[in-house]
Amino acid sequence: MNATTDLRICVLGLGSMGLGMAASLRKRGFAVTGYDPNAEALKRFAEAGGQGAASPAEAARGADVVLSVVVNAAQTETALFGPDGAAPALARGGIVVSSATMSPEAARALAARCAELGLGYLDAPISGGAVRAAAGELTIMASGPAGVFQRLRPVLDAIAAKVYELGDDAGTGAAFKIVNQLLAGVHIAAACEAITFAKAMNLDIAKVYEVITASAGNSWMFENRVPHILDGDYAPRSAVEIFTKDLGIVSDIGRGLKFPTPIAAMALQMFVMTAAAGMGRDDDASVARMIAGLVGLELPGMGA
Amino acid sequence: MNATTDLRICVLGLGSMGLGMAASLRKRGFAVTGYDPNAEALKRFAEAGGQGAASPAEAARGADVVLSVVVNAAQTETALFGPDGAAPALARGGIVVSSATMSPEAARALAARCAELGLGYLDAPISGGAVRAAAGELTIMASGPAGVFQRLRPVLDAIAAKVYELGDDAGTGAAFKIVNQLLAGVHIAAACEAITFAKAMNLDIAKVYEVITASAGNSWMFENRVPHILDGDYAPRSAVEIFTKDLGIVSDIGRGLKFPTPIAAMALQMFVMTAAAGMGRDDDASVARMIAGLVGLELPGMGA
Repeated sequence: MNATTDLRICVLGLGSMGLGMAASLRKRGFAVTGYDPNAEALKRFAEAGGQGAASPAEAARGADVVLSVVVNAAQTETALFGPDGAAPALARGGIVVSSATMSPEAARALAARCAELGLGYLDAPISGGAVRAAAGELTIMASGPAGVFQRLRPVLDAIAAKVYELGDDAGTGAAFKIVNQLLAGVHIAAACEAITFAKAMNLDIAKVYEVITASAGNSWMFENRVPHILDGDYAPRSAVEIFTKDLGIVSDIGRGLKFPTPIAAMALQMFVMTAAAGMGRDDDASVARMIAGLVGLELPGMGA
Repeated sequence: MNATTDLRICVLGLGSMGLGMAASLRKRGFAVTGYDPNAEALKRFAEAGGQGAASPAEAARGADVVLSVVVNAAQTETALFGPDGAAPALARGGIVVSSATMSPEAARALAARCAELGLGYLDAPISGGAVRAAAGELTIMASGPAGVFQRLRPVLDAIAAKVYELGDDAGTGAAFKIVNQLLAGVHIAAACEAITFAKAMNLDIAKVYEVITASAGNSWMFENRVPHILDGDYAPRSAVEIFTKDLGIVSDIGRGLKFPTPIAAMALQMFVMTAAAGMGRDDDASVARMIAGLVGLELPGMGA
């Protein structure tokens, strides 16, 4: 089981991220089984050459490694430990790699439950989006025992361009990811506030994009998301609901630590307002549409 | 007066930006006079080879171009139109270049008063900081008549690496700059919130810096300011009070337009809190010290 190509992989959650990771693994010669409660997702996986299954347990049977690429801690727990969950179906010595964004506390709890079953655990949040998932070029912010990293090396090499090894303990990877999400969420909300503010001042917002991306006001998210607004294209590359979730985790952690996060809290409210206005499943740049709708501004693609 | 090297320049405001711009102009062979109400600043200017004066009017006498590089609209108005102000001392056909960050409305009012005296006006906010000012490599976000741009070309070339020509009307340059400042201020406050949040979660914040600057949570300001926090160095490259001012302008414009700016408003409060805690003249990364002090965290340089 230590030979690189012998590892059998099970992917739980076949959305754009899980599907892309599965494809990257197959390209490197891994046998990949998969499960998703959504029949459409399961069908796409099978059409792409994957071995679909009727439950997490069935998908995990005989696998050495389970990659859990679902949305949050609750879904991870269900996929691993719910009825027909994957964890008990894995052989002793198997490894669970968990990629959903969650609190460090939730990651530690999952690691402990895996340990009870004699399973290894890698706390491995991912960043990079669907395109880089499909290309095997994700960034992984991971923590776990050195031995687990070592055994997973060929798997991580297949799916990631960059793996940060952040320590031995479950929870550290989760904490790094949540710091990233705090900033990412605030920067998206700020980009939407700034570009609609520019429009309210009658500026040419394409020119604003050109000037700001060359100035000290730039952010990775401003540069990446404002083109969606300029194009009036709100097809979800990443949805508003991802940030109501992730900034909600920031808020929960902050309350637990008695640590105030006022900027993140305000950004969270902007995403909640956007979801409340019916755009929760649209692209997260929809915060700009929410603001524009509120104040009666017309952005591209919002024609009367 | 149209020959490039003949233009005589007067610089009002000899802080780090004005001083650097004056030095860049002298390097290119321009004759430069200057004024600052601060005697120390005036002395540094003279020591560097500049021709100091006892008032804005005296500095501007015989000059073709006045560069006003003071802090805000009120100071600009005093320097140009106050007792011994520079504007009436300029010859008809002279040009005022105004670089303070201010509201578009304030820029338009200044342009109108210049026009009454037969003076040209360039609305020309700058970005880049003291180091780039001294190197003649500022970014200028400028608006004004084509003829004004044309006459100023050698002056702008001497002080800037990049000049955005944003239209004919005073106010447009100011509006672009204020959009940049909205984002810059939010990103500094968010960087300070995120890095202290990471510290509260017991993360290695130098490692957080490494991971975030390579991830989607990055911003120009995160990358530039967090090293100040890691080094515990709050010597002011740009002070907290710059952002209480500039985000205050954002807030004022928003109220005037009935345009809500909740993220900028929250960031403004973080800078106000930091100034209230006695750090108004320190580096703007001091927002992190304010948060750390509040919650009882120890950052570098904050030893008991």
